[in-house]
Amino acid sequence: MGKLRIGIIGLGNMGSGHARYLVNGEVSGAILTAISDPRPERLQWAKEELRSDVAQFEDHRELLRSGLVDGVIICTPHYDHPSQAIEALQAGLHVLIEKPAGVYTKQVREMNEVAAASGKVFGIMYNQRANPLYQKLKDLISSGELGEIRRTNWLITNWYRSQSYYDSGGWRATWAGEGGGVLINQDPHQLDLWQWTTGMMPKRVRAFCSFGKHRNIEVENDVTAYVEYENGATGLFVTSTFETPGTNRFELSGERGKIVIEDGKMTFWRTRVSETEFNRSFTGGFGQPECWKCEIPIHGHSDEHKGITQNWTNAILNGTPLLAPGEEGIHGLTLSNAMLLSTWIDDWVELPINEELFYEKLQERIRASKSDKQADNYQALDVKGTH
Amino acid sequence: MGKLRIGIIGLGNMGSGHARYLVNGEVSGAILTAISDPRPERLQWAKEELRSDVAQFEDHRELLRSGLVDGVIICTPHYDHPSQAIEALQAGLHVLIEKPAGVYTKQVREMNEVAAASGKVFGIMYNQRANPLYQKLKDLISSGELGEIRRTNWLITNWYRSQSYYDSGGWRATWAGEGGGVLINQDPHQLDLWQWTTGMMPKRVRAFCSFGKHRNIEVENDVTAYVEYENGATGLFVTSTFETPGTNRFELSGERGKIVIEDGKMTFWRTRVSETEFNRSFTGGFGQPECWKCEIPIHGHSDEHKGITQNWTNAILNGTPLLAPGEEGIHGLTLSNAMLLSTWIDDWVELPINEELFYEKLQERIRASKSDKQADNYQALDVKGTH
Repeated sequence: MGKLRIGIIGLGNMGSGHARYLVNGEVSGAILTAISDPRPERLQWAKEELRSDVAQFEDHRELLRSGLVDGVIICTPHYDHPSQAIEALQAGLHVLIEKPAGVYTKQVREMNEVAAASGKVFGIMYNQRANPLYQKLKDLISSGELGEIRRTNWLITNWYRSQSYYDSGGWRATWAGEGGGVLINQDPHQLDLWQWTTGMMPKRVRAFCSFGKHRNIEVENDVTAYVEYENGATGLFVTSTFETPGTNRFELSGERGKIVIEDGKMTFWRTRVSETEFNRSFTGGFGQPECWKCEIPIHGHSDEHKGITQNWTNAILNGTPLLAPGEEGIHGLTLSNAMLLSTWIDDWVELPINEELFYEKLQERIRASKSDKQADNYQALDVKGTH
Repeated sequence: MGKLRIGIIGLGNMGSGHARYLVNGEVSGAILTAISDPRPERLQWAKEELRSDVAQFEDHRELLRSGLVDGVIICTPHYDHPSQAIEALQAGLHVLIEKPAGVYTKQVREMNEVAAASGKVFGIMYNQRANPLYQKLKDLISSGELGEIRRTNWLITNWYRSQSYYDSGGWRATWAGEGGGVLINQDPHQLDLWQWTTGMMPKRVRAFCSFGKHRNIEVENDVTAYVEYENGATGLFVTSTFETPGTNRFELSGERGKIVIEDGKMTFWRTRVSETEFNRSFTGGFGQPECWKCEIPIHGHSDEHKGITQNWTNAILNGTPLLAPGEEGIHGLTLSNAMLLSTWIDDWVELPINEELFYEKLQERIRASKSDKQADNYQALDVKGTH
């Protein structure tokens, strides 16, 4: 293969961004050859903004069988990611999907099965995995520097969204249109990083979601989730869209101290000996291990979306390992599904979750949903500063 | 009345501390005239360390009827606070009790009823209410600067206690000896400040306690509690004794921004207009109110325990309002009882809690407790740095 010929399915906010850096030649070894979108105004945008030799399709299935592409980036509404990924894989194409992997794990599991059988390169746009800050955290945990984890605590309440944002599309923040709120739209990266950096998925979840709090929307926009891990550690994930300025603070506590990521910096309060060892030998009543406050250097910069597209391209062309394999998208989604389900049944949810029960409860909400899927409700928003 | 004649019941760590500053004349208008403790070695300590004219009693009831005191400070084990306070009030004495108010709200409610009928001055040693940091927080909330509260989040995991601490007394960290763990021993101040500074008690609580985690003890030493308030706000209280260095961070989010207290400092991220007002008028999709990061000045210093004893003395001598009325001790205890009960029944607990059910569940644990109440297990610990 010479250059990887890429097609983009869906020219919304994210798809348009991917198209721009691809036509600018910013991903080495890749070329944008086709796009598809059912909306005339987006095709018009493509005609004006992209190279003239990029083929246009209204129907993504025509793009898939056009013979013009080796792989596709899928940037359509959440519900369509799994079905379109399956179509593309079955058409013999490599696939990179936007996050989230889907809306419910049942459909995502089917996608993963098709991907595994396809032999194609299947990635997911978890661009925050390319962020050196979280790579360093994963390094400090997996190398044992933090010791066994005892608590995780992510307070991510800086996803402020005004009513005006929600009103910008009739499908926004509806069960039928998006299948969820802050968990499915704003938090997929944090939910993924929470499990990816620690290497731990909870064994059970008890969560408390509020729906349409301080906003006229159907879906959850305030979540407090408590989790328990196999090793006895506990965790918290707290998120909302009505707090301003809000907070983004990830604290992890382990046998060797604690790590806090906040304001783009990482601080490691490291005990000189492990707590377990100290506790075993100490006889003085009050007292605790000597502790050093360490500012952890973070080198390199994050290539964000472009970095993930480059990595996926390299995986196809050269066999480079994927930073974000598509199959791993199910982990973060499992967490968000579990949080909603726990709220809906007002009880614990054990992992793996009861996929059928979640699907059923979601369908009830979709049937009652007031989503307005009219395409002319679409209004492009400037997504600078979002992920 | 000339000088207020004070008796101290119980010369453990806290009682000995109160005795010292009183015999040093550090509380204006007050004089230590008597102490009681059943342990010979503590009376011996008193003989050597205190003024020779301080009367000594083995039995606190003799002290109460000695005619030598106008008021008593009760510093005995937690379980005895309410019954001894009742005895003292009924003997016509003013009372200042150490925290916690008691172990279960049923006994504390009885104490409060006797206190209300007695006409005596009844205080509780909530010395952190004298801390200018928390007084300022209460001021910013009650004056409306923060606007309506939307989330409270107290992470107080810096109560590190080694096994050696727990082993220093056979009664320690047992149901029979202390009636609880970190909630009743280490957290009473934070539990009180949580409700005192905000002026809000939750309407319901869902909590998750672990008992004897990483330690050989009976009681809870790891707690995550989620609460919901009447106005729709939510809250978290997270605490443990095995994390080091741990964290003490109190974040409050409201209509006008957020306040964080950490490392003895207060920062107020204040929005220029309230979120409610911004959201009502904003039409730009993405965007949020202008926000100013404000370092809040904290003036004065905390007189800690001595300050509360002075305030209680002034209340008796001059009618000064109490900073920490004894009757308010039930609030923090209600929170800690609710957290344990929610864990024990693995369900929500509505406030006011079912006192009988809590009492019953506690008794089950007391009956199974391995507490060793032998006085010779007593070992004085240096409490510097604790409250």
